[in-house]
Amino acid sequence: MSESIVFEKSGGRAGYVAVKAVGPERNQGANGRDKVLFTPGPLTTSPTVKEAMLHDAGSWHFEFNAIVASIRERILRLGGLSRQEGFEAVLLQGSGTFGVEAVFATCVPPTGKVAVLANGAYGERMVQMLKHAKIDHVVLRSPEDTQNDPGALERALAADPAITHVAAVHCETTTGILNPIDQIGRIARKHNRTYIVDAMSSFGAIPMDLAAAGIDFLVSSANKCIQGVPGFSFVIARRSALLASAGNARSLSLDLLEQLKSFEKNGQFRYTPPTHAILAFQQALDELDEEGGVAARGARYRRNHQVLVDGMNKLGFRSYLDPKVQSYIITAFYYPDDPNFIFDKFYRRLSDKTFIIYPGKISQAETFRIGSIGHIFEADIRGLIAAIGQTIEEMEINVQPRT
Amino acid sequence: MSESIVFEKSGGRAGYVAVKAVGPERNQGANGRDKVLFTPGPLTTSPTVKEAMLHDAGSWHFEFNAIVASIRERILRLGGLSRQEGFEAVLLQGSGTFGVEAVFATCVPPTGKVAVLANGAYGERMVQMLKHAKIDHVVLRSPEDTQNDPGALERALAADPAITHVAAVHCETTTGILNPIDQIGRIARKHNRTYIVDAMSSFGAIPMDLAAAGIDFLVSSANKCIQGVPGFSFVIARRSALLASAGNARSLSLDLLEQLKSFEKNGQFRYTPPTHAILAFQQALDELDEEGGVAARGARYRRNHQVLVDGMNKLGFRSYLDPKVQSYIITAFYYPDDPNFIFDKFYRRLSDKTFIIYPGKISQAETFRIGSIGHIFEADIRGLIAAIGQTIEEMEINVQPRT
Repeated sequence: MSESIVFEKSGGRAGYVAVKAVGPERNQGANGRDKVLFTPGPLTTSPTVKEAMLHDAGSWHFEFNAIVASIRERILRLGGLSRQEGFEAVLLQGSGTFGVEAVFATCVPPTGKVAVLANGAYGERMVQMLKHAKIDHVVLRSPEDTQNDPGALERALAADPAITHVAAVHCETTTGILNPIDQIGRIARKHNRTYIVDAMSSFGAIPMDLAAAGIDFLVSSANKCIQGVPGFSFVIARRSALLASAGNARSLSLDLLEQLKSFEKNGQFRYTPPTHAILAFQQALDELDEEGGVAARGARYRRNHQVLVDGMNKLGFRSYLDPKVQSYIITAFYYPDDPNFIFDKFYRRLSDKTFIIYPGKISQAETFRIGSIGHIFEADIRGLIAAIGQTIEEMEINVQPRT
Repeated sequence: MSESIVFEKSGGRAGYVAVKAVGPERNQGANGRDKVLFTPGPLTTSPTVKEAMLHDAGSWHFEFNAIVASIRERILRLGGLSRQEGFEAVLLQGSGTFGVEAVFATCVPPTGKVAVLANGAYGERMVQMLKHAKIDHVVLRSPEDTQNDPGALERALAADPAITHVAAVHCETTTGILNPIDQIGRIARKHNRTYIVDAMSSFGAIPMDLAAAGIDFLVSSANKCIQGVPGFSFVIARRSALLASAGNARSLSLDLLEQLKSFEKNGQFRYTPPTHAILAFQQALDELDEEGGVAARGARYRRNHQVLVDGMNKLGFRSYLDPKVQSYIITAFYYPDDPNFIFDKFYRRLSDKTFIIYPGKISQAETFRIGSIGHIFEADIRGLIAAIGQTIEEMEINVQPRT
């Protein structure tokens, strides 16, 4: 019994042809090609990243542990840091949310109080985490189309000495808005508070200087701009701040300090790691380097975003955000003001054409979202725009955006 | 630019040849073949399970959600259950430990008290979880080579009405001992307590009747006997018991009830799922069916175990456990009583021969462990035994087990 399976990669784009048909349920279109994800993650990844998962690795095995160690070093370098400068990268099983919650669950003492800057669902999710953990907190809200308000933080920190931690979301994926994390960091540092940043959908694509921004804990995830597959998050932590957390942990699984200690003791995760996702991440880091690093990747995403916005504008769609505060990660567009536009139908017709977009999450406006990140290129964006153009014709939608 | 990659599967065993060399760091031996894992998981999985991960899926996408729904149904069927009988399968990101902790974090009320039956590291890990969550508990310990003591539980439940929950580990992977979960369940039910079982390394290979055993919550993981890849755990929950947990959750990420509600609301995970691990699990379930289900898989593992023990005995190694309480999942062997036996050296020499074994975890004896589970067959076990025989000759070890 011997069987050969041939996979063919086609050019630089996400197209991936499995000669052995595996059925549409695994994300293929009628043409046998994988549908392309224009989403905030999980993303379309490169064929070679996925192929790295064709191997089983022992979670206790020294060769696997060496990979984990190298990944931890490489994550720090992407943040412009090193262990010598007093930072550590800690990987944690689960999604990005698990990583953010782990920071709160481990690093805020019982008497701590967190000021959360919120202008979307991910800021509000932080608030939910703090409620679950019964951690005192105050929420500094801005409207969803407006950046976090550093002035409000300045006033809150000056007025309330009980606040020990400041938490913000870099790119709020709800809208795609970019928050002023450097400015927030300067205020947190001036008032000597610990600073936590959710950089889930920005890290790896938007250059950042953690040390300059005064960030103590930054959280991101494998399946975002580094273009790995989902399975774990990672936290870049100021070592002294993490070590000072001893005794706080409200959860065993989410105990970041013990996770660090385990990596330092024997190179291992405390509990079963997603070994295949780790192998894929190693490959993804290689491919990020090959592309030219964070700046080059960010430049590609920026081009993707520009082609997207130009094309959508030409079709008559209008972006939700002011371009001044809009990231090049994900873009929210208003629903057209036409009863013929039914999002679910629109979505399914695009899916039939092998393009997967994303629903909206904004509480104050009807929008859908399109991501510019992942192993997607200008040609993919142009293909999507063409498919959207065709779909609005099929559905006889008059694209006059709501105002 | 077009590139073809050919993968060749060789027969029924785990051998997997990537014609495009990807380096020894991805678990290949000098022969280019993947090393075989004789571990308690992550396991050696089939090539086809890994190939299912060659596709990216959208976590919001209806086709992906349909896969998740079918997986939830199929897990119930493996436990001899259905939704109609009042059970639900809830998937949770992270390792098995996250699943066990999620049950405690969600389902034990603030005034609850858990009786933990412990005879190894995984029972002790439950105790650690309860300590972190500040949940009252009592530990009923047995020695590591002795099954849980149902009599002690009977007395504890009769004496202490504050105990609300009973928790046990089915196959305690520390030693491979099988605990009497049916008998424990009868006692828990008689005293009307909620019953939680960690069936991490047994579910899918040891037939069990959850309803008959009176189990309210059973936890297992993707990368164990169903032979998927790591990335998530799953909980089979008595629906009424889970719904009764409202308001308890101590963690947002680990809130099992909200996880269920999200699956019921829109078919989605609340937070990013490990999409590739889910696709692999779907394939793994297909392959479990093809093999003939839980009984047939258990029979293969039993043969693996028997060939292992016979071969090791012939070499002079002695098992840690009495065969009466030994599972066919994983087996602990005493170190030989010879200074030439240095585990790390022994391990590395076996690794060089493409065989990965597992260290011991027993506090009272020096042992190493060998798993019988995963996509491994009698021929693999015989290959391992031959390699161990060769290694003890190379290292000039006199295998006279310690007594």
